[in-house]
Amino acid sequence: MLFKDGDTIVFAGDSTTDAGKLSTGDRLGTGYVRLLNGMLNAFCPEVRSRVVNAGVSGNTSADLLARWEQDVTAEKPDLVFCLIGINDVWRHFDCFDPSRRQISAEEYERNLEAICERAKGARELCLMTPFYMEGNRSDEMRIMTEQYAAVMKGVAKRRGARVIDLQREFDVYMQSRPGQSITWDRVHPGEIGSLLIARAVWRELQK
Amino acid sequence: MLFKDGDTIVFAGDSTTDAGKLSTGDRLGTGYVRLLNGMLNAFCPEVRSRVVNAGVSGNTSADLLARWEQDVTAEKPDLVFCLIGINDVWRHFDCFDPSRRQISAEEYERNLEAICERAKGARELCLMTPFYMEGNRSDEMRIMTEQYAAVMKGVAKRRGARVIDLQREFDVYMQSRPGQSITWDRVHPGEIGSLLIARAVWRELQK
Amino acid sequence: MLFKDGDTIVFAGDSTTDAGKLSTGDRLGTGYVRLLNGMLNAFCPEVRSRVVNAGVSGNTSADLLARWEQDVTAEKPDLVFCLIGINDVWRHFDCFDPSRRQISAEEYERNLEAICERAKGARELCLMTPFYMEGNRSDEMRIMTEQYAAVMKGVAKRRGARVIDLQREFDVYMQSRPGQSITWDRVHPGEIGSLLIARAVWRELQK
Amino acid sequence: MLFKDGDTIVFAGDSTTDAGKLSTGDRLGTGYVRLLNGMLNAFCPEVRSRVVNAGVSGNTSADLLARWEQDVTAEKPDLVFCLIGINDVWRHFDCFDPSRRQISAEEYERNLEAICERAKGARELCLMTPFYMEGNRSDEMRIMTEQYAAVMKGVAKRRGARVIDLQREFDVYMQSRPGQSITWDRVHPGEIGSLLIARAVWRELQK
Amino acid sequence: MLFKDGDTIVFAGDSTTDAGKLSTGDRLGTGYVRLLNGMLNAFCPEVRSRVVNAGVSGNTSADLLARWEQDVTAEKPDLVFCLIGINDVWRHFDCFDPSRRQISAEEYERNLEAICERAKGARELCLMTPFYMEGNRSDEMRIMTEQYAAVMKGVAKRRGARVIDLQREFDVYMQSRPGQSITWDRVHPGEIGSLLIARAVWRELQK
Amino acid sequence: MLFKDGDTIVFAGDSTTDAGKLSTGDRLGTGYVRLLNGMLNAFCPEVRSRVVNAGVSGNTSADLLARWEQDVTAEKPDLVFCLIGINDVWRHFDCFDPSRRQISAEEYERNLEAICERAKGARELCLMTPFYMEGNRSDEMRIMTEQYAAVMKGVAKRRGARVIDLQREFDVYMQSRPGQSITWDRVHPGEIGSLLIARAVWRELQK
Amino acid sequence: MLFKDGDTIVFAGDSTTDAGKLSTGDRLGTGYVRLLNGMLNAFCPEVRSRVVNAGVSGNTSADLLARWEQDVTAEKPDLVFCLIGINDVWRHFDCFDPSRRQISAEEYERNLEAICERAKGARELCLMTPFYMEGNRSDEMRIMTEQYAAVMKGVAKRRGARVIDLQREFDVYMQSRPGQSITWDRVHPGEIGSLLIARAVWRELQK
Amino acid sequence: MLFKDGDTIVFAGDSTTDAGKLSTGDRLGTGYVRLLNGMLNAFCPEVRSRVVNAGVSGNTSADLLARWEQDVTAEKPDLVFCLIGINDVWRHFDCFDPSRRQISAEEYERNLEAICERAKGARELCLMTPFYMEGNRSDEMRIMTEQYAAVMKGVAKRRGARVIDLQREFDVYMQSRPGQSITWDRVHPGEIGSLLIARAVWRELQK
Repeated sequence: MLFKDGDTIVFAGDSTTDAGKLSTGDRLGTGYVRLLNGMLNAFCPEVRSRVVNAGVSGNTSADLLARWEQDVTAEKPDLVFCLIGINDVWRHFDCFDPSRRQISAEEYERNLEAICERAKGARELCLMTPFYMEGNRSDEMRIMTEQYAAVMKGVAKRRGARVIDLQREFDVYMQSRPGQSITWDRVHPGEIGSLLIARAVWRELQK
Repeated sequence: MLFKDGDTIVFAGDSTTDAGKLSTGDRLGTGYVRLLNGMLNAFCPEVRSRVVNAGVSGNTSADLLARWEQDVTAEKPDLVFCLIGINDVWRHFDCFDPSRRQISAEEYERNLEAICERAKGARELCLMTPFYMEGNRSDEMRIMTEQYAAVMKGVAKRRGARVIDLQREFDVYMQSRPGQSITWDRVHPGEIGSLLIARAVWRELQK
Repeated sequence: MLFKDGDTIVFAGDSTTDAGKLSTGDRLGTGYVRLLNGMLNAFCPEVRSRVVNAGVSGNTSADLLARWEQDVTAEKPDLVFCLIGINDVWRHFDCFDPSRRQISAEEYERNLEAICERAKGARELCLMTPFYMEGNRSDEMRIMTEQYAAVMKGVAKRRGARVIDLQREFDVYMQSRPGQSITWDRVHPGEIGSLLIARAVWRELQK
Repeated sequence: MLFKDGDTIVFAGDSTTDAGKLSTGDRLGTGYVRLLNGMLNAFCPEVRSRVVNAGVSGNTSADLLARWEQDVTAEKPDLVFCLIGINDVWRHFDCFDPSRRQISAEEYERNLEAICERAKGARELCLMTPFYMEGNRSDEMRIMTEQYAAVMKGVAKRRGARVIDLQREFDVYMQSRPGQSITWDRVHPGEIGSLLIARAVWRELQK
Repeated sequence: MLFKDGDTIVFAGDSTTDAGKLSTGDRLGTGYVRLLNGMLNAFCPEVRSRVVNAGVSGNTSADLLARWEQDVTAEKPDLVFCLIGINDVWRHFDCFDPSRRQISAEEYERNLEAICERAKGARELCLMTPFYMEGNRSDEMRIMTEQYAAVMKGVAKRRGARVIDLQREFDVYMQSRPGQSITWDRVHPGEIGSLLIARAVWRELQK
Repeated sequence: MLFKDGDTIVFAGDSTTDAGKLSTGDRLGTGYVRLLNGMLNAFCPEVRSRVVNAGVSGNTSADLLARWEQDVTAEKPDLVFCLIGINDVWRHFDCFDPSRRQISAEEYERNLEAICERAKGARELCLMTPFYMEGNRSDEMRIMTEQYAAVMKGVAKRRGARVIDLQREFDVYMQSRPGQSITWDRVHPGEIGSLLIARAVWRELQK
Repeated sequence: MLFKDGDTIVFAGDSTTDAGKLSTGDRLGTGYVRLLNGMLNAFCPEVRSRVVNAGVSGNTSADLLARWEQDVTAEKPDLVFCLIGINDVWRHFDCFDPSRRQISAEEYERNLEAICERAKGARELCLMTPFYMEGNRSDEMRIMTEQYAAVMKGVAKRRGARVIDLQREFDVYMQSRPGQSITWDRVHPGEIGSLLIARAVWRELQK
Repeated sequence: MLFKDGDTIVFAGDSTTDAGKLSTGDRLGTGYVRLLNGMLNAFCPEVRSRVVNAGVSGNTSADLLARWEQDVTAEKPDLVFCLIGINDVWRHFDCFDPSRRQISAEEYERNLEAICERAKGARELCLMTPFYMEGNRSDEMRIMTEQYAAVMKGVAKRRGARVIDLQREFDVYMQSRPGQSITWDRVHPGEIGSLLIARAVWRELQK
């Protein structure tokens, strides 16, 4: 199994990870991290673990990198899961403020490299690909999301990190129902998406 | 000009028309109806008019038909604008509760016919097509929305009602920016979409 | 599989089922029913189902029986899960108001029989045993809870209903950690207990 | 056209510009600035711009001058619109606290001169005259407002700044309806007045 | 003195009389009626009296007449003070909804006549003239207010009712300060105006 | 007249003066100071004045003295009214905490002397006696209050300050009604007492 | 002992008994009834009892009599404690509304007689005298309170009811501290007074 | 008697002592400390005392020791009551976060020794044993609680401190009713438990 008694497990990311943690003051939020913490306690009570939610809504890879030392390294994690990138993509589609800088695929790659470097102290690092809940593969934002996901897979390979392909989880779902049935914006996972992510992480934890 | 001194103008529809009227208690809501009421007062102060917001969030054409007498006819309108149909479409994409009935294009047509019949007391009826803020023309929900919009245009032609093609307004916008920049869900128009609708209605009112 | 496309699934019970449904106004509550509804949608999107939470905090078997027609039968359920009995037991331990009637094991049995009779219209009925999160088997309230659970198993056997032994789920957990680590009162399941119950029901649904 | 792709447009002023920005925390407020920002995005999506609301309720020309560097210059504006002066006038009519200083027409002129000097870094500066929604031209506060508006026009001429005569917009309106129909206090523009101001600024932006 | 031990004194009118009574639930409101009730108790403790606030915000003379039996007669008043008319005037200046009926000077006169008729059971009736806090005597709304006040004085004379000329109280004040220093809208009296009205009524009560 | 155009008038004291100023955030409070500020503006609009409420609930003469520089002198008053002493008395009757120090008549006298000394910069100082709304002259707390009031009169005489005997105002009232009809605690003046105090101060201001 | 296993004990009275029950929704209130209910459960756990708070703030003996059937008899009490009368007295001292009826000592006596008659179904009735926390025996309200208490004792004697002399409890206290140290108004008992009453009732219950 | 006129009495402990003091802002809380303060004032008014609640929810003996100087010594107590230890025990049963340190019986003993040392300035120190409201003497948490209570008694003996055995108070109660009838969690005493503790302390104070 990936986790051991006494482990600290940090989940780093954006609003999908945060899931109301900062706005409600609950340290676990209401998303997949909360589910996983509960599953660890309920289904493996013989193992003691500490789960840390290090998600911040709206974060790009640059924002996450900037707070890595303070929010991740300082927790002395044994395992790190990192789900980042959809905001790097999204700002190309909803922000037309000329004073805001956008993050290219190249910068995204550099940020992920730096994150891997800084996560070296952990026993395991697992990168989770950004995903877009749109079944139409010719959709522009889906295409760009897949490009960034491919960048992440490349970095993980070079760095020896684990990868969870979350887009694949949602694609299976979208064979039966459109992405709108999960969420209006195709980005925030809600209850259904949180369960899909938690199941994928749980499988990885069993390996 | 389409409107005269002393007119009552009713806007009937769903959440795009309602725009918070019911949840906030403000009788005009915060969307395009509020803008049009303000524009009538500000730019044509020599004309007295009464604007009624008869939108209810979540309404399909069946829901609107069921409350037409009470919410539209009872106001004795001189002009009626009717924007309905997106919820007829949407429930095919986000609702998988087996106990909920879905509205086919045929039922949509019958409902619009009945609406036209009941609106005969007004001097003018103007139908406004449902729209979907997705630029990709191969998107399944956009395709279905266009089918329902075509149904509406057919009914309007047979019945001699005016038509405003709102999808066209949003398509012009989407030549420059993706639909996500207006709204996450591609359905609720927000500030940008309300301005686009208000401009289109205003032009019709000047005719 | 126990469930089919188009099924209505009703969960009847007390506060463990209700889980804030009535106090927060959310129709699913925040407990195991919410988890199961999410799991059905997330993991079996090819199947459409409707989940109904028919729990009411504080209910004994007598209270549940009294509202069965209105809250369960009226929903026309295909599957019914029924978790009831802990309040029948608990009132012997925390209520010393001489004007309050207490429910004996015999009355509990009669109530369960009547519930089985009224649930005949459903395709399947599954009874779930009351449980007490106290590892000490000589605890008086645990002993009485097990007596009532045995009554339920007897009724189920006679009536051909399914049974889920929830006490067993919690006993496995309590081999590693005391019941207090789930909940102060040893009755309300909280997040950990809700996951344990949801997992047990899920397994039954897969049969 | 007055504005170009990539422009930052700052609106400086008092409560008419602020319009709830500070009290509600929304950075655009609910007045004419919000409307203009929406119109720029809705009607010119091919142009990216950034709109800044630099209004503060209750400001006189002296207050605005004192915060110009911090609130206007620091934003590096390409275009600056400045609507100030009604509070300079109003305090002569509603404040009888002997410890409060009042701003004469001479001081108003000096303040506007200083504002023009500090706005030199912008490509264009447009001054907007204070206005009073009272149709009676012999009203004392209207007379004084017109005096201050004349001072502003003189400064604009000397400095080569643009001018929008907002009193004229309201006078057209008041040919049909009294000023009270816009607002009780004849000062705060409300929805009708905001539309009149936004239309005037929009025309200027098209030049 | 106008009042005696054991008297019930009713003040009937619009928002100036109501002064928050209905919105705050305090039966006396926060305006001149509250002051007078306090003054009666504080300065004439040897006399017991009951003060009733029968004001309703927004009332015209027609609205007041319609509720006279229920709100005034039912209290069995010994003295009645009636301040009504400004809303009859105001609606000519701020309401352009074609569906709202306006009250002419003739209808105002008829309503006051009917009020006098219905107040016959009281020992004394005192009419208080509507007033407008605008010093400019050529202001259109002031002119109309004075016309309605003249109508009231005529009715009072014919009917033998007392009259308090409240416009005169405010005119004295406006010799020193503009009406805006009392209130933005020149209609609602606020603290200063409530004191002026209370002083005028107090003088009448001493007669 | 005691006051002139441009005067700053400070009212220093305890909760009777404060009257909710600190708890509600309104700078005038809801007691006699608010009434006097309104009366000055309403009845003498030709005179501009500034009224400062410098009351703090619970203050004894020692507390007031300690904050005199900051709360009174810093306002540069022309006139100072000072109502203090009831808390010096009251703590002998309701406080049995051995760690709280009590203020004797001798210390009260020293504090008043120091207050007079520090108030020399004002044109006029007026001391107002503490009072107790108990008609029974043999009541222990009334007796002590009168002793402290006598101390105040002595200080005023030596120092040439004005004095308002507030106990006398309440005694006239109590000839007709018991003190309980003003206030349960016989200390806080409420609406009736505030009017009595305001009338007494107003008379002094007319001298 | 006065009470037995299975008893229902009703406390009937005014605000001293109610103690926030109606305003806070807690069925026991926060006063002496709550203390007694806790003491019965804590100190006599071998006895099961039901305590009912039947106090209503502001009640006179007439008010209590009017609701006796509904609030007391309907509870089928075994023991009834009745504390009523201070509002009968108090209204002579704080109410000068000529439309309010006052309750004489004679009417008080008749009301108590009627209460005794209606309480016959209970095993025991105990009347508790009204009290006034004023040590000065020449205080007018104390004198009247003692007169009403004497009336109660007379009725109790004739009817064979028990009596608790609560004034005596407070007089012992007031030998050491003034009544103000309990409560400002000398009527509502607060924490200290509730403990004194609870101790007196507890002693009676032990008899 | 244990206490004298002028004494300061400090109660130090955890949430049982705190009882909402910190969360509600009331300096006495709502538990046994409030009761005792009331009893001292009500039943011994001839003695003046000051009661300090120095409880903090969640405190272990280590937490209490760390704040002893600031929260206890600084109050200059004459009498100190100290109820601490249940959180030292509880964390072994409900906390499985590997990063949290647990307090062994040895550390508990050292902490109590240090507390006795620091309390030397007080005239009397009284230790109160931790208790667990579980009647089953083979319950694991009850066993551990008794071990810690035994440690406390040993320390008290060596140090010459008084001891109150609170477990015994609850055991008497639990002969008639189960611990759940006091509180769900068997730890927080609620109203019944607070009365039991207050009675035990009161008896000690009488010695």
